[in-house]
Amino acid sequence: MNPDFLPYKNLLDRAREMALVNSAAQLLSWDQETCMPPKALPYRAEQMAHFSGWTHRLFTDPVVGDWISECEQQGFPPHSDEAANLREWRRAYDRQTRLPVALVEEFQRQCTLARDAWVEARRQSQFVIFRPHLEQILEMCRQMAYHWGYERSPYEALLEEYEPATPLDELKTCFNELRPTLVQLIQQGTERARSTPDDLLLGDYPIERQQAFNLEVAEAMGFDFKAGRIDTTTHPFCNGINPGDCRLTTRYNESDFTQSLYGVMHEAGHGLYEQGLPAEHFGTPLGSCVSLGIHESQSRLWENHVGRSAAFWRQWHPIACRYFPGLKKLAPEQITQAINRVRPSFIRVEADQVTYDLHIILRFELEQALLEKELPVAELPSAWNAEFKKMLDLQVAQDNQGCLQDIHWSLGAFGYFPTYTLGNLNAAQLIHFARRDNPFLAEGLLAGDYSFLLDWLREKIHRQGKRYTARDLMIKTTGLPTQVQFHMAHLQETLDLNA
Amino acid sequence: MNPDFLPYKNLLDRAREMALVNSAAQLLSWDQETCMPPKALPYRAEQMAHFSGWTHRLFTDPVVGDWISECEQQGFPPHSDEAANLREWRRAYDRQTRLPVALVEEFQRQCTLARDAWVEARRQSQFVIFRPHLEQILEMCRQMAYHWGYERSPYEALLEEYEPATPLDELKTCFNELRPTLVQLIQQGTERARSTPDDLLLGDYPIERQQAFNLEVAEAMGFDFKAGRIDTTTHPFCNGINPGDCRLTTRYNESDFTQSLYGVMHEAGHGLYEQGLPAEHFGTPLGSCVSLGIHESQSRLWENHVGRSAAFWRQWHPIACRYFPGLKKLAPEQITQAINRVRPSFIRVEADQVTYDLHIILRFELEQALLEKELPVAELPSAWNAEFKKMLDLQVAQDNQGCLQDIHWSLGAFGYFPTYTLGNLNAAQLIHFARRDNPFLAEGLLAGDYSFLLDWLREKIHRQGKRYTARDLMIKTTGLPTQVQFHMAHLQETLDLNA
Repeated sequence: MNPDFLPYKNLLDRAREMALVNSAAQLLSWDQETCMPPKALPYRAEQMAHFSGWTHRLFTDPVVGDWISECEQQGFPPHSDEAANLREWRRAYDRQTRLPVALVEEFQRQCTLARDAWVEARRQSQFVIFRPHLEQILEMCRQMAYHWGYERSPYEALLEEYEPATPLDELKTCFNELRPTLVQLIQQGTERARSTPDDLLLGDYPIERQQAFNLEVAEAMGFDFKAGRIDTTTHPFCNGINPGDCRLTTRYNESDFTQSLYGVMHEAGHGLYEQGLPAEHFGTPLGSCVSLGIHESQSRLWENHVGRSAAFWRQWHPIACRYFPGLKKLAPEQITQAINRVRPSFIRVEADQVTYDLHIILRFELEQALLEKELPVAELPSAWNAEFKKMLDLQVAQDNQGCLQDIHWSLGAFGYFPTYTLGNLNAAQLIHFARRDNPFLAEGLLAGDYSFLLDWLREKIHRQGKRYTARDLMIKTTGLPTQVQFHMAHLQETLDLNA
Repeated sequence: MNPDFLPYKNLLDRAREMALVNSAAQLLSWDQETCMPPKALPYRAEQMAHFSGWTHRLFTDPVVGDWISECEQQGFPPHSDEAANLREWRRAYDRQTRLPVALVEEFQRQCTLARDAWVEARRQSQFVIFRPHLEQILEMCRQMAYHWGYERSPYEALLEEYEPATPLDELKTCFNELRPTLVQLIQQGTERARSTPDDLLLGDYPIERQQAFNLEVAEAMGFDFKAGRIDTTTHPFCNGINPGDCRLTTRYNESDFTQSLYGVMHEAGHGLYEQGLPAEHFGTPLGSCVSLGIHESQSRLWENHVGRSAAFWRQWHPIACRYFPGLKKLAPEQITQAINRVRPSFIRVEADQVTYDLHIILRFELEQALLEKELPVAELPSAWNAEFKKMLDLQVAQDNQGCLQDIHWSLGAFGYFPTYTLGNLNAAQLIHFARRDNPFLAEGLLAGDYSFLLDWLREKIHRQGKRYTARDLMIKTTGLPTQVQFHMAHLQETLDLNA
């Protein structure tokens, strides 16, 4: 079939037009977090709503459905660029057009109210303030799941929004395997951590020096600062604005340089993925990231597998000492031990590598139970606290240290949390096979030469965009769908650093 | 008539939609100058072109013409909001729809080429590189003027783009009156400047201190930093992004604090106008600045009439000394003399207050002669240099110090230059009548309390938007259209500071 087929060209043109608008919306959003003066907010909010409504109208236009159908009737070769784009356009078009417009608008309205209520509930640590909003949102999520369609649980339809192509059953199997092993590892880790003092790395780290050190690390990773930058925000993020413009943010703690360092390595991991997507496909599925679980695998891989390794600190210790002379009194091994210290804690975003996934599993199980009406919303705090005690042996005293800590549910994002742990599993699995594929890679990591690793990720992951589904991409790259074993082995190795 | 008249509401909706898009384009443009990494440029350029094409299509849509006609047939009371908006929509609609699309596109293409050629021509100081492009652009400007329509000179139609409602004849009369007086004042000023050493203000001014001092001055002027900010760029500008978001830029010279200070006072003058426009009319003519000549009057008023006055330095000298202890050795009067030193020079943007307008008159006369084919493009450099010698008694040795110094002609902006001098004339006229209207104003200026001045400008100028034409606004506010006498009196007073 002729790839100049007119309906396909129309789809490409439409996708490029949407990208031009969406890229502007990305910049508006970046600016809102970094530069925008406060009084600009009301107009900016109206503008963002207009832009998102506009791209939605451009894509759900019935003529787009006609073009997709015409292309499907013509058919493209199974592994062609066109077939991959069509598969994804079809999926997105069906999802977006299946929801009644009134439901979408009401959901957005409810989420705005719920977010405000959540902020207040968290401030006062009063779950009762958030409860009616959470009930509303859950009910609307069930309705959306109904329109999208599912087999056994509405959670399937919601998960698909963030992690298409990973079946819920597969995810459950992974997480069920993970949970008991993690509980064991934590006991072991907590035991060993006793030998490392709490405050080993605390010191005086001027922000300008942290910035200079982080910059050197991000450049060594391969992040292209001619096509990106780093700014400061309360909540770190990575925003791919256009093929030549990827912006990271981080936050600084003047007595602990590791917060900004690992923040930057994490976001630069996301950024390398964005910078590695094929620019010629920008705006189409082939030029877009495949799933959140793969995106997160890139950040975790650089943050945890590269940045928290013994090899990293053997290489970077002398350089870090130039910026932070206080580190001279420590051996590289001591730094590695300190940054891998295991200690159960209440807040997910502050958790160490080993306890982190239990925070996710807790949310994953609770959000399914809520959606499936097995857990009444009123009982969420007690269910949370009971499970938390079982998993991490800590007693939650206040709900803002418990079920009120995350923003996600107030935004209606049910099914988002598991992608964090999927990211961890994928990261471990990918670097395992990267090492196997390329014997120079391990040497490179020891010598601070990350080009072998980056080249491998570029070829296997970044340049693929949405050519395959996330599940197929993992199989194609590693021979297996996402597994638990590689992450478990990695955590055990990490613990053994403290042996 | 009913102000809920549907065609009028449609026009308002269309204007607001255009504003949402245009405000995003403003942010894209601000970001391009301040934050954007270099590799983002090609996509950004495509995006800007898309946005400008899009607002153009929204406005030149034939249905917009129909709505305007229907409103005109219905009629609105002469001094109503609706009548003012309609007058301006009609003017803009006619101008935009009278140009053939092919001509607009070809003009943009030629300007892109001309700008590149100008950059190279200026770098090499070789007029011959720019000459064919300037010929092309002039020919296309004549064609555009033909489509827009004019009585005697195509220049009339071009001037209207920047300064609608100010007749060319009136401008010529002003400028003819100005020229000989300025030549005399410069002789007098150059004579007196001999007593002030060249390097009186040179010193060591760390950028952070300049920033802190400038901030204090801009806040005293009344610039709202909750609705704005200041950044650093090579070419200073002011960009009104939305009613709560006005962004200024400046540049720093570490051995001369006056460059950034007067840069900030100038741009904050523009910014106060933007912040004072009625937010409820944002996106419509009533919420927009009336003309470039009025916009520039606001920047010049704050920069020159407030900032370069003897009163300013009597008030601010002790504060400036806190930031720049080196200034303690100078009396406030010495600073005032130094910043008002008259010295003919080649570059317009570096010119002092007294010589500045001669730079403009030169360009104003030459661009008319070029457009009217009285001056062949090939003879521009010799004509420029001969006139420059007559006016400022300096011999231009290189064209990049002469006719190649400004970007404007390469962008096709013929008719723009006179608005700078109109700004000077309007500034002097406005502050003259502001002082007469409010007896507290002069005292306020002496005491560093600028609220009387700002309140007057808010009421008379800022809040009016495009309610009146620029000419009518001057008449309504001061009883007279733009005159030369007030500016002349101001320059004479400035010279007398050095007497």
